[in-house]
Amino acid sequence: MTIKFDNVYINDTGTVTGPYEKNGPLQSYFDKSYNDFYFGLKTWEQAESKLIEDSIDILLNKIGRTRFDIDLHISGDLMNQLTSSNYAASKLGIPYLGVYNACATSTEGLIIGSSLVDKKIIKNCVCSVSSHNNSAEKQFRYPIEYGGPKRKTTTFTTTGGASAYLSSDKKGIRIESGTVGSVIDMGIKDVYNMGAVMAPAAAQTIYEHLRDTKREIDYYDLVLTGDLGIYGKKILKEYMETEYNIKLKNYDDTACMIFDLDNQPVYAGASGPACAPLVTYGYIFNKMKKKEITRVLLVATGALMSPTMVNEKMTIPSIAHAISLEVIE
Amino acid sequence: MTIKFDNVYINDTGTVTGPYEKNGPLQSYFDKSYNDFYFGLKTWEQAESKLIEDSIDILLNKIGRTRFDIDLHISGDLMNQLTSSNYAASKLGIPYLGVYNACATSTEGLIIGSSLVDKKIIKNCVCSVSSHNNSAEKQFRYPIEYGGPKRKTTTFTTTGGASAYLSSDKKGIRIESGTVGSVIDMGIKDVYNMGAVMAPAAAQTIYEHLRDTKREIDYYDLVLTGDLGIYGKKILKEYMETEYNIKLKNYDDTACMIFDLDNQPVYAGASGPACAPLVTYGYIFNKMKKKEITRVLLVATGALMSPTMVNEKMTIPSIAHAISLEVIE
Repeated sequence: MTIKFDNVYINDTGTVTGPYEKNGPLQSYFDKSYNDFYFGLKTWEQAESKLIEDSIDILLNKIGRTRFDIDLHISGDLMNQLTSSNYAASKLGIPYLGVYNACATSTEGLIIGSSLVDKKIIKNCVCSVSSHNNSAEKQFRYPIEYGGPKRKTTTFTTTGGASAYLSSDKKGIRIESGTVGSVIDMGIKDVYNMGAVMAPAAAQTIYEHLRDTKREIDYYDLVLTGDLGIYGKKILKEYMETEYNIKLKNYDDTACMIFDLDNQPVYAGASGPACAPLVTYGYIFNKMKKKEITRVLLVATGALMSPTMVNEKMTIPSIAHAISLEVIE
Repeated sequence: MTIKFDNVYINDTGTVTGPYEKNGPLQSYFDKSYNDFYFGLKTWEQAESKLIEDSIDILLNKIGRTRFDIDLHISGDLMNQLTSSNYAASKLGIPYLGVYNACATSTEGLIIGSSLVDKKIIKNCVCSVSSHNNSAEKQFRYPIEYGGPKRKTTTFTTTGGASAYLSSDKKGIRIESGTVGSVIDMGIKDVYNMGAVMAPAAAQTIYEHLRDTKREIDYYDLVLTGDLGIYGKKILKEYMETEYNIKLKNYDDTACMIFDLDNQPVYAGASGPACAPLVTYGYIFNKMKKKEITRVLLVATGALMSPTMVNEKMTIPSIAHAISLEVIE
C-alpha cells in the first residue's frame, strides 16, 4: 500500500552513535559519537534511551527550536515495551506515539509522520529510533560477558540514535511517498540468519512500491535496504530476479556500509533500527545534497523475532516499509 | 494534541474473550468467549495471537468483507516485540503497522487509523489489540504456577482480542476527535499499583482534550477510562479536582466493569490493552446505539512499565490517549 506525499520534507536530522560506528567508514557523517557503551549512565538500557534524547537535542539545536515547538514525537526501538523511546519521551513531554516493526521501525514512523504532516493534521513531528548493541545482545541473545562464538551470518546490532524533523517547509530532503509492507513468513527459524528472514519482505515491498507507483527499478539512483547484511543482500538480489524478474543494479544495504566489514568484528554486517537512518541521514543525504544521486528508495527491513516464540519453535515473520526520498528541485 | 475528524466511523467490531470475562457481568456483549486459556493451541502466546485472528475473522464476517478488502491493519499488544499482533498480521498478509503504548495502544491505533481514513489516505482499516492474562503474568510478573499472593492494588490482565473496522461510511459509531497524550512520570516505582501510575496521565489527557476542544466535562455523557482499577479510579477523581479543578461526574473505568469485583478474584479490577475496547465495543456501543448515551470520551491509559527498568530501580512512565465517540445524528 503506497501513500503519495505532496509536501513533506526531512528538514534536518540528528544522529548519535557508539564506538564501533565511530571507528567505521562513515564516522565523519554522524553528529556525535561516544567512545564507550554507557555514556556516563549505569546501564545499557538507560544509555540507549540517552541516544534518542541526544539525537533530539542535536536536532532541535540545529533547527533552532525547542521541544514546545514540536507537535508530535513518533518513536520506537528494539527494547521490550519500547523502553528507550518511552523514557526519552518522558523527558521530552510532548504528544507521543510508540511504534514497533523491529528494524523497519524507522520507515514505519516516517510514513505515519509524513501522512500527518502532508495532510496538515500536524505542522511538524520528530521521528526517532534507537538501538544499542549491548542492550540488544542482553535481551535477544546471550550475555556479552559469555563471549560465545557466533555464526558468520549473524549481524552486529548498531549502537545509535537517529531523529528526523519533518515539516512542509521546502528544505532538506523530500519524502515523496511511502509503501507500507505486510508481514510475510517464509518458514525460517534460524535466529542467526536474519538477512535470510528479511530479504523476501524487502523484495515484496520493493515490488509493491514499483507496482503502485508504476515505476521501473531504474527510476531510483539507489535502492537502499537496511539491514540485510552480506548474505541477506545476496539473497535479495537473487530473489528479486527469480521471483519478480527485477534486476537490482544501483543497490546497496546499510548493514554493509556502516562498519568496515573486513576489519571490524561484525560478522555479516550491521543491524538494529538505528542502522538504516544513521547511514541515510548522514552519508546518503550528503550525496543527495551534492546531487550525486537524486532519487533513493529506502527500504527498512524488520525481523519480527521474539525469543519467546523462537523457544516455542515458531518461525520468524518479517516486514519491510519503504520511503521514496528525493532531492528538492 | 487533539485531532478533529470529519468522517470516520467504527462501522463494526469483533470481540473475543477468555473464561473470566465470559463469567463476568458483560458476557452477553462479547462476540465469542473461550472456556480455557489455550483455545486448542500449545502455548499462551500462540493463544493470544489467536484472539486477534478470531476477532478479525468475526469482524470481517460481520461486514461481509475479506482480508483483501482491507487497506491497512494497525495492531499492538503487551507481548514483547508485539508478538501476538505480528503473528496474526502474518496470517492476514495485508499492510501492517505495529504500535505500542501499553494499555493505551487501543486508542493510539484508532487515532492513527482515523487520521488516515479521515484524510482519505486509505479507504478503511482494521485496528486490533489483544491481551492474555497468563502470557502477561508470565512475561511481566511471576509464573502462574507459583501462585504468589498479590496486593490489593494489583490488577488482573484481561484475556481478549478486539478489532474495529474504520471507514468513512456513515454507520456505527462516529470517532469525532482524538487526543494524543504525552508521557508523564510521577516518580512511582510500585509495579503493583498501576492505577496510581496511570491516573495522572489520564487526568492530563482529559484536561488537554477539553482545553483543545473548548468543551466542559459535562459535554460528555460518559468519560470512560481504561484501565485504572478501583484505586486508580479514585485517584483520578481526586487528582482531576485538585490539579485541574474538574469534577468527574458521569465517569467510569473499564477495569471496574468487565469483571464482577465482588465475586471474581481480580483484585483491583482488570487491565491489559483489550480491556477498554472489549467493554466499549460491546456494552458501551450498545448503550450508544440505543441512545441512552450519545457522547463518550474513551481514555485508554498505559503504564509504560518494563521489568528490566523496574529491576534497575527506574520509575514507571505512563501515557493516555483519548477518543471522542458520538452517536450518528
